Amino acid sequence: MGARKKLARWLQWFTVFTLLFLVGFIIGWFARPADKPSEKKSDFLQEFLDEIHAGNIKQHLRKFTRLPHLAGTKQNLRLAEQIQEEWLKFGLDSAELVWYDVLLSYPNATRPNFISVVDQHGNEVIKSSLAEPIPEGYENVSDIVPPYNAFSAQGQPEGELVYVNYGRTEDFFKLQREMGINCTGKIVIARYGKIFRGNKVKNAMLAGAKGIVLYSDPADYCADSVKPYPDGWNLPGGGAQRGNVLNLNGAGDPLTPGYPAKAYTYRLSVEKGVGLPKIPVHPIGYSDAVHLLKNMGGAFPPPDWKGALNVSYRIGPGFNGDFTQNKVRMNVHSYNQVTRIYNVIGRIRGAEEPDRYVILGGHRDAWVFGGIDPVSGAAATHETVRAAGKLLQKGWRPRRTLIFASWDAEEFGLLGSTEWAEVREREQERQMMENAKMLQQRAIAYINADSAIEGMYTLRIDCTPSLHTLVYDITKQLMSPEEGEEGMTLYDSWHKRDNWTDNRDAPRISKLGSGSDFEAYFIRLGIASGRARYTKNRKTERYSSYPLYHSVYETFELVERFYDPTFRRMEAVTRVRGGVAFRLADAPVLPLDCNEYALALSQYAHTILQLAQKHPQEMERYAVTFASLLLSLIQDALFSAVDNFTYAAQKFHQRLNTLDTTNSLSVRMANDQMMYLERAFIDPLGLPGRPFYRHVVFAPSSHNKYAGESFPGIYDALFDIGNAGEPETAWSEVKRQISVAAFTVNAAADTLRPVA
Amino acid sequence: MGARKKLARWLQWFTVFTLLFLVGFIIGWFARPADKPSEKKSDFLQEFLDEIHAGNIKQHLRKFTRLPHLAGTKQNLRLAEQIQEEWLKFGLDSAELVWYDVLLSYPNATRPNFISVVDQHGNEVIKSSLAEPIPEGYENVSDIVPPYNAFSAQGQPEGELVYVNYGRTEDFFKLQREMGINCTGKIVIARYGKIFRGNKVKNAMLAGAKGIVLYSDPADYCADSVKPYPDGWNLPGGGAQRGNVLNLNGAGDPLTPGYPAKAYTYRLSVEKGVGLPKIPVHPIGYSDAVHLLKNMGGAFPPPDWKGALNVSYRIGPGFNGDFTQNKVRMNVHSYNQVTRIYNVIGRIRGAEEPDRYVILGGHRDAWVFGGIDPVSGAAATHETVRAAGKLLQKGWRPRRTLIFASWDAEEFGLLGSTEWAEVREREQERQMMENAKMLQQRAIAYINADSAIEGMYTLRIDCTPSLHTLVYDITKQLMSPEEGEEGMTLYDSWHKRDNWTDNRDAPRISKLGSGSDFEAYFIRLGIASGRARYTKNRKTERYSSYPLYHSVYETFELVERFYDPTFRRMEAVTRVRGGVAFRLADAPVLPLDCNEYALALSQYAHTILQLAQKHPQEMERYAVTFASLLLSLIQDALFSAVDNFTYAAQKFHQRLNTLDTTNSLSVRMANDQMMYLERAFIDPLGLPGRPFYRHVVFAPSSHNKYAGESFPGIYDALFDIGNAGEPETAWSEVKRQISVAAFTVNAAADTLRPVA
Repeated sequence: MGARKKLARWLQWFTVFTLLFLVGFIIGWFARPADKPSEKKSDFLQEFLDEIHAGNIKQHLRKFTRLPHLAGTKQNLRLAEQIQEEWLKFGLDSAELVWYDVLLSYPNATRPNFISVVDQHGNEVIKSSLAEPIPEGYENVSDIVPPYNAFSAQGQPEGELVYVNYGRTEDFFKLQREMGINCTGKIVIARYGKIFRGNKVKNAMLAGAKGIVLYSDPADYCADSVKPYPDGWNLPGGGAQRGNVLNLNGAGDPLTPGYPAKAYTYRLSVEKGVGLPKIPVHPIGYSDAVHLLKNMGGAFPPPDWKGALNVSYRIGPGFNGDFTQNKVRMNVHSYNQVTRIYNVIGRIRGAEEPDRYVILGGHRDAWVFGGIDPVSGAAATHETVRAAGKLLQKGWRPRRTLIFASWDAEEFGLLGSTEWAEVREREQERQMMENAKMLQQRAIAYINADSAIEGMYTLRIDCTPSLHTLVYDITKQLMSPEEGEEGMTLYDSWHKRDNWTDNRDAPRISKLGSGSDFEAYFIRLGIASGRARYTKNRKTERYSSYPLYHSVYETFELVERFYDPTFRRMEAVTRVRGGVAFRLADAPVLPLDCNEYALALSQYAHTILQLAQKHPQEMERYAVTFASLLLSLIQDALFSAVDNFTYAAQKFHQRLNTLDTTNSLSVRMANDQMMYLERAFIDPLGLPGRPFYRHVVFAPSSHNKYAGESFPGIYDALFDIGNAGEPETAWSEVKRQISVAAFTVNAAADTLRPVA
Repeated sequence: MGARKKLARWLQWFTVFTLLFLVGFIIGWFARPADKPSEKKSDFLQEFLDEIHAGNIKQHLRKFTRLPHLAGTKQNLRLAEQIQEEWLKFGLDSAELVWYDVLLSYPNATRPNFISVVDQHGNEVIKSSLAEPIPEGYENVSDIVPPYNAFSAQGQPEGELVYVNYGRTEDFFKLQREMGINCTGKIVIARYGKIFRGNKVKNAMLAGAKGIVLYSDPADYCADSVKPYPDGWNLPGGGAQRGNVLNLNGAGDPLTPGYPAKAYTYRLSVEKGVGLPKIPVHPIGYSDAVHLLKNMGGAFPPPDWKGALNVSYRIGPGFNGDFTQNKVRMNVHSYNQVTRIYNVIGRIRGAEEPDRYVILGGHRDAWVFGGIDPVSGAAATHETVRAAGKLLQKGWRPRRTLIFASWDAEEFGLLGSTEWAEVREREQERQMMENAKMLQQRAIAYINADSAIEGMYTLRIDCTPSLHTLVYDITKQLMSPEEGEEGMTLYDSWHKRDNWTDNRDAPRISKLGSGSDFEAYFIRLGIASGRARYTKNRKTERYSSYPLYHSVYETFELVERFYDPTFRRMEAVTRVRGGVAFRLADAPVLPLDCNEYALALSQYAHTILQLAQKHPQEMERYAVTFASLLLSLIQDALFSAVDNFTYAAQKFHQRLNTLDTTNSLSVRMANDQMMYLERAFIDPLGLPGRPFYRHVVFAPSSHNKYAGESFPGIYDALFDIGNAGEPETAWSEVKRQISVAAFTVNAAADTLRPVA
């Protein structure tokens, strides 16, 4: 063999060896698992959505609506234990009962509440009914609480009646300023609707009334061409709306504002409790109301003060004709009592980031059977837990921790959810577990699960802007539940029925107000929140809420016969809520959209500008210079802050597109920025006079807790000009609020900027 | 070749190939870098410590003390620009000036402030000096501000003088209750020392005084056997102590409490500003004071009210003998003015967790030359930045972001540091950058860098308990700066001089009070904080602070001749501060010790219990049942919370020992728990009446902002019993505060528990 040949041979072998080594090296390199966020494409999402079934939801609803489950009662504790047991059986890692001792309010069992008319001899010539007629099939059920307004003051005030329409701020202004009617010492009667009943009571107190009767007018609680229950879903004349009349403004238990209602917590005396009305309040149905209204005298009402009863709706004070000597007497003997309530808290521990929480929570307590409120929602949550348990069995585990909550005492002022936002307890260890800071540090989002259905028309979403895109994405993956829309997506069905035309070509999404359990999470703690339900046609159906709201007629049959016979609407809502929670818990990069927040902020700033421009003649009357200074303040400070935010959000999402998703620290850092975006809108000093409403962009209106106001601080300050405030103080406050809002929006922009 | 041989050959080759493949595979496997926290053992720490040199510190001190650098002046802006430039030259990634427009206070240039004695004919028979004698070498320096009390009210009140000792709460109690002396309408004179001067002024106002003169008594501002400056480091008779007399309680700029002092922020009117005294205040030296005190009449003083001047220290009111007709007149013409101030903010971007911040900050503004306060500290920080820059050149980069700060206007109420805790600004982008939320979400620790030296004896550390162990570790790596202690560690030198005997066998570490720039970071935001300096012998040296504090005699020469001729003490302090910051920024697992926090909490709970037990006869007088209820409340609620915390901390550190440090997400999660521990002690509702003091465990005493109180809410509530409060209200408040403290300690425990 020649040297050349030898060399060639040697080279050959060398090449082979080298190649072999390289092959080994390369295989070794790639065989080594990199420590990176698992990118397993979530096929599990579709599996999870498919696992949610209408038939099961129907069964849950049937099971949970057989008995009344009033907060603080044994039945509601039993139901909590049952839910805990089933959640564990479904496969959650844990399910615990967490209790608090909060102030509740009940009618006196031996001295019923009612309204009467008393003649000049002191005879009660008219008395309102003591209870609603019990619906068929439920005649043997005990413990149906009669209609009452929880936390009413006790008392038997007697006086002339004044009709105050809906009892809104503007209604009382009209009474006092245009009609010259003074409510001091009067008993007022207001129709339910338009605003939260607690605000009506507060307004009545401010006007000096010594009592307030609330009634349901057919104009507000009957839909056209629909029969009263049980033949249809309208309110019968004997039905009445229960409900609390607190003005808590987010405090939770009235005796322990800001701190948990646990044994060692210092409790205020009831006299000093937060938000408790000082006057008696009582609700009646329209069969009873007609007897009070028909003989009223005094001024004739403005056209829009007339309801649909066959009476004149005269304002009073007092009765007319033969009845001028008659007075109205309220008889209210309800009592407040510190009572134990129970949340059920279930948990699936996150596989990779157990210290990041996504919460799906809704209440369990009901005024009576709760067919719609809340059990349509509780049944949905139950089915979601079942589906998640199924997936766990198949080997799935979410990246982050999923928390499921069945809240207690929502009907008494969002008490269970608010207390849990202050403290939780690990039953086994008997230890207090502070929660506010944990949630502030660790919570990604809160999805509310109150009533799943309040109408038969289309989907309704209220959520923080950063969730818009995720909601759209999920609804594009789901199918319409409507007959005749086979093959159409839920998104398209929704879009077709409720287009956001004044804004953009997409299904309408609304702001969050309050009135349900997301309040403490969203408005006190600044956690991205949203809610979903099926709703009525907001253009053609003008009644308030749904007709049988908080009456004894909210039964399983109401839903089964009228609202959702196939249970596919509730199935769709369940899948929307569940799908949103699933993606938030499982997506490596959080599916939050900061650009949507920018868009919303810009719209809100324009709304404020328009308000300031159009707004009161008072602006000219008191302060022409102030007004133009104000406009330039809004333009310079607020709009420039919104511009900063918009820019920061765009840049953030550009960086997110090029994020190295194999670097788990980088992903975590970007996610932290998105998680803390909502937190950035919290002002620790709170809104003026409302220390537990701390979200600078979203809070319930001061005049209606159901409605969400954007930039509530500025809005309220503008409202006070010429209405309530001394001019110079009021103007200063407007300027201060604009500066706070601009500061906060800039703060939020900074959350999204490069971190160092 | 037979089949066997062929097979053998084949097997041979197969083996070779397989081995080669395996070798390749194995090399490939290990060549692939795992994405794990770099465990590079910090050899860089020693290199960093060694890079810090006494000689450089001396040069920085020399350079920064040539001219006065009063906040709001051109000189101080120039110095800021110089520091910014040098920090960039040293190699920081960025160094920016960040400005605010805050309320400052200056003497009137044409109407000097002074105190006079006026006879019955209105003649000023005595007048206090208008300035201190200028020290040698500085005669040609202009812009030396004369002694004054910043934010004094203007005015020329005239009245009888009352001597009120140190002007403490207990001094005024003694005056009013035991001596029966009413200060209403009087001018009071108080000696400096024991408590913050602002508290003296507040007490004088509460007592009804119409003016207050502050003076330095030799008993409090002269050390034994030491000569007055320039022959020694004692206060000469002509020297006086400048200083602000605000009661800000952490608000920052008095006109924009809680919000940044920037253009668009709503400003309070000066009348409504936070903490501004309503009466004139003026400081004098003891040469002047003796003329006021020597002729005083009225009651003779208790023994402990006597200072070291050759006068009787009679209390007054007014003068004795021939001088009874004489009155004291104050002449104060200082004015408040919104003025621009400048922080310098330098930054080294973290390599792996840029969104985690460690801050080393101290102030730059001085009353005059600031030889000790603050330039001994500013020089130390400058050297630290230089050393960090050197390391950057060698390829080091910290795991987390390091921030260096040169604060402005500390002397006017910690304004620069507090404003930056509210907002920062990126100069280049001209954008507001909110900071409070960023810091709450991202800051690991704040190390304060005010005066590095106030005595010649040993190290002094005030810090949060979780930093104890880290401080001990660093001081064990450093050498004693004392002559004759070659080869001894700083730890041993310190231990030998100041043993924590009442507690444990280790060097004493104290609680943080206030009076320097850590306040907003620690007490408002809940960021783990600490400070280090060289100090006097606390057992034998009884004078207040250091004798020349805030006088014109705080020069470079004072330090060079007396406090630290070799500059090795300042070098040691610089290394302690720098080493602590370095480790916090660079260690993969944060070197915080939660068990130390548990120990401290337990001690504080015992202190509270003892206080409640010993405490006032009032306890028996008003409420025997209350008292025992109280003790059991402390024992049940507070001690059980401390037990929970102790258990949680132990378990946390056990888990930390077995943490998989190759999993970067696990490390991050554990670090987040430690980072948020200090935050857990923040009550968003604040301490009663002090909304910006929100730390439930540590806050300045209500009676002396220099001193740190543990469980200040409980302490103050206990103090009020029988002193200030209506009994029932006071007792309720004690109980409420115990419940808040117990709740908060439980909250902190939860921070350390397993996350899901």
